[in-house]
Amino acid sequence: MTERRGPWVRHSRVPLCATPRLTAYRDEVTLPHGMRGTYDWVQVPDQVRVGALVNGALLVVEQFHYLTGPMWQLPGGSMDPADRSSRKAAERELVEETGYRDGRWYDRGSLRALPGLTPAQVHLWSTIDPAWSRAAPEPEEADLVVRRVTLNEAVFAVRDGRLRCAASAALVMMLALDRGP
Amino acid sequence: MTERRGPWVRHSRVPLCATPRLTAYRDEVTLPHGMRGTYDWVQVPDQVRVGALVNGALLVVEQFHYLTGPMWQLPGGSMDPADRSSRKAAERELVEETGYRDGRWYDRGSLRALPGLTPAQVHLWSTIDPAWSRAAPEPEEADLVVRRVTLNEAVFAVRDGRLRCAASAALVMMLALDRGP
Repeated sequence: MTERRGPWVRHSRVPLCATPRLTAYRDEVTLPHGMRGTYDWVQVPDQVRVGALVNGALLVVEQFHYLTGPMWQLPGGSMDPADRSSRKAAERELVEETGYRDGRWYDRGSLRALPGLTPAQVHLWSTIDPAWSRAAPEPEEADLVVRRVTLNEAVFAVRDGRLRCAASAALVMMLALDRGP
Repeated sequence: MTERRGPWVRHSRVPLCATPRLTAYRDEVTLPHGMRGTYDWVQVPDQVRVGALVNGALLVVEQFHYLTGPMWQLPGGSMDPADRSSRKAAERELVEETGYRDGRWYDRGSLRALPGLTPAQVHLWSTIDPAWSRAAPEPEEADLVVRRVTLNEAVFAVRDGRLRCAASAALVMMLALDRGP
């Protein structure tokens, strides 16, 4: 299964552990400088984050994260196997967490959250003026609160540490730069 | 070892696999809605990213990442056990990758790259007008190229997918917003 990847070569791969949430692998590789070594990495599902603007206000979700404590984020989460696209996943997560759906959607590209650890991508979407229907948070989101904030306050929340999710922070600032001064 | 964490309760923890680069754990938990379940997560070192402006130009590193292919990033990487602080780690990574050191340093806060998978933080720093000394990239960075780009080009590179590292993208746009129109 030798596979060339740019200046790297992969010689073999073994799973180290596998659970429904993550799989860790060890690859035997040749590094860019020519020496042999190993590369341990983790497979997890891609994620989505949505910047939803309702009458100019940004929807932000606040919840207590098991690993990191209380945190603001943009609505979103892991893609399900049943999601046919990142856009469908983004629509699903937005309505589950906030009750909003539809609006005018824009593809905002994708980011790599921890490119040295996992190839997982975070797909970014925005939607303008979605309509309210009904929220249906998942069991682990029982404490989720939806806030409407100005883009200025969201940028301030990145700077002061309330909004610390990296992909959410990047999308908030992308929307703020788009809006202009 | 029962531990309350906001609306969560941790009952026990077992390691699933451990390597020098990562450790995966399974925690037995009570979820916010009151049901029992498990939470699998990964421990990896904190990281640092540095926005270094030299005569108004931003230093960007380009390399082929084993997991994600060619990518622009801000200089940075994982903290070493020997790093006494994220600032020291940022200074070390900047000089290793680009040859630049010192300058006027600013704390830009920290982000959580994948808050559902790992508590690891990415600590953000910026430095204005560091001085060139001598680069010393690590073996896996033998293909690393340093570019100097305008902040506008760096923001454009986030939008067009060249600069896809989430924490780097967030810091680039934070610096662009600081600069103003």
